[in-house]
Amino acid sequence: MRREPHASAGWSVGLDIGGTKVLGVLLDEEGEVRHSLRVPTLPGAQGVVASAADVVGRLCGAVGKRPEDLVGVGAGVPGLVDPATGRLSFAVNLGIDERGVELAALLGARLGGVPVAVENDLNVAAVGAARVLGLPGDLAFLALGTGVAAGLLLGGELRRGRHGAAGEIGHLPYEPSGPACPCGQRGCLELYASGAALDLAWPPHNGRPAAADLFAAAVEGDPRAVAVRDGFADAVAAAVRLLVLTCDVEHVVLGGGVADVGEPLLLAVAERSRQQAAGSPFLRSLRIAERLQLVSRDVPVAPIGAALAVRAPAPGHERPVGV
Amino acid sequence: MRREPHASAGWSVGLDIGGTKVLGVLLDEEGEVRHSLRVPTLPGAQGVVASAADVVGRLCGAVGKRPEDLVGVGAGVPGLVDPATGRLSFAVNLGIDERGVELAALLGARLGGVPVAVENDLNVAAVGAARVLGLPGDLAFLALGTGVAAGLLLGGELRRGRHGAAGEIGHLPYEPSGPACPCGQRGCLELYASGAALDLAWPPHNGRPAAADLFAAAVEGDPRAVAVRDGFADAVAAAVRLLVLTCDVEHVVLGGGVADVGEPLLLAVAERSRQQAAGSPFLRSLRIAERLQLVSRDVPVAPIGAALAVRAPAPGHERPVGV
Repeated sequence: MRREPHASAGWSVGLDIGGTKVLGVLLDEEGEVRHSLRVPTLPGAQGVVASAADVVGRLCGAVGKRPEDLVGVGAGVPGLVDPATGRLSFAVNLGIDERGVELAALLGARLGGVPVAVENDLNVAAVGAARVLGLPGDLAFLALGTGVAAGLLLGGELRRGRHGAAGEIGHLPYEPSGPACPCGQRGCLELYASGAALDLAWPPHNGRPAAADLFAAAVEGDPRAVAVRDGFADAVAAAVRLLVLTCDVEHVVLGGGVADVGEPLLLAVAERSRQQAAGSPFLRSLRIAERLQLVSRDVPVAPIGAALAVRAPAPGHERPVGV
Repeated sequence: MRREPHASAGWSVGLDIGGTKVLGVLLDEEGEVRHSLRVPTLPGAQGVVASAADVVGRLCGAVGKRPEDLVGVGAGVPGLVDPATGRLSFAVNLGIDERGVELAALLGARLGGVPVAVENDLNVAAVGAARVLGLPGDLAFLALGTGVAAGLLLGGELRRGRHGAAGEIGHLPYEPSGPACPCGQRGCLELYASGAALDLAWPPHNGRPAAADLFAAAVEGDPRAVAVRDGFADAVAAAVRLLVLTCDVEHVVLGGGVADVGEPLLLAVAERSRQQAAGSPFLRSLRIAERLQLVSRDVPVAPIGAALAVRAPAPGHERPVGV
């Protein structure tokens, strides 16, 4: 049970720690998923560490390994992260409203000294999406969930920004005269392109998620559903245009809860993107619709990306992520 | 007159090739400007090469050197550039409407084999601004000229994008229901935040540039001037917010023709930026107004950046620009 001489060739665990659940995957030395698991998240710093350690222990146990046998554990978390120190601040969804929680150190100690890397959840999703979709590492992972934000992988490197604001496009104005946003501005993109916005515009019934129900009704020709779907897809297409006209990312991967809709979402956004470009040779030349991709939530891109990120050199090195 | 053994320690020339003039600087081995010069630009590929070679020859002649003594010549050009090959496409302002003009090779041959690097003009301006302002290499150079666009230097590396669309924020919508833009969309940021927009809103008279005249009239309390200035500054502040909420750049440097206004422009944009953040703890936490800087046109950031860029390793190496 000795440690691998080449750390990057060993097994690793990746975690996506969300407000309600921790999703974990165990990757073998080839980077293949060997086991996965989800458990409810206990709130607060101690709760998060306990939930995460529980997942790591059970993933290892399922294949007869111990946490100490891993080359590392990567964790994607919602909130402001310093990947160099593994500290997490203001992760409100996790019940962590303090600053500088030593998540990497606490979890590493709990796991017998295994190296732990902590990263923003959208960043690890971008890394995982590049791997899962077989894309070179130049993409935005556009999460359409409660909010709207993107993880940016530019030329193989995560773009974090020192202030954690990179990819926070949900709080750029979409309709300057629109309604008030909880962030204090008006008409933010998040009020139009998020899963929460869809829930408001098409309240869930039939026991199905709003997005699935809406897209099904639109396909059946319900004119109100068509209008709501197209308005939503327009806003998502605007988010994609924004990512291309600022960062010129090769690919924009739609993810998050709304992406569970699958192909119909991709088609609707591509169609509105082409509409937006119809009168503009400039936009057409950028082939924005052709840059779209989608991963549904049943593909665990965030934990896969987290498990890959922990195999790579520390931040500041030439290629900080394993893509 | 032999070549320096360490190329990066020698003298270099940087050029900013615009539609009306070529501005050149000669940098010594310390990176200090030893001489500068501007000549009118002759149109078309042959004209551009002749104008550029003329500037290089005269800059060298002024200090008793020959072009062959230089470690290299860097050229910033408006248009789609492939820095790896030195090819330029669709530089309409230069009378080049064809694809793949071998600008680096043509100019290098004309100069007796000196290495020539060709780069987008806003990219070299970003490199030059970082040097001139003494900033670490994480900034956007926001050019407020005929159009609106940004050069992006992220973590010391230029963000080009494969399609040349990085930083093309002038064609993101600012007022979705606004007037038609020549690009084919409606209400683009360029229609509100450019020098051309100012010329329309405050037509030049008194023989002064529109921006200078407008800001002077606003300071004197002319209520219409105050309204036009504040509307303009609001649009520029929106461009700055856009750059921060996508790329989280440490600094946004205002440049281009409108930046000749100087400090009053910086103050007006900072004031509107603070206004935009007034109701939003989220925006306030990002300290966007504090990220603003300005360089006026009499500081030749683009040619300085071009002269630095040619001293650095080729694109693809760890640090492609000399900052």
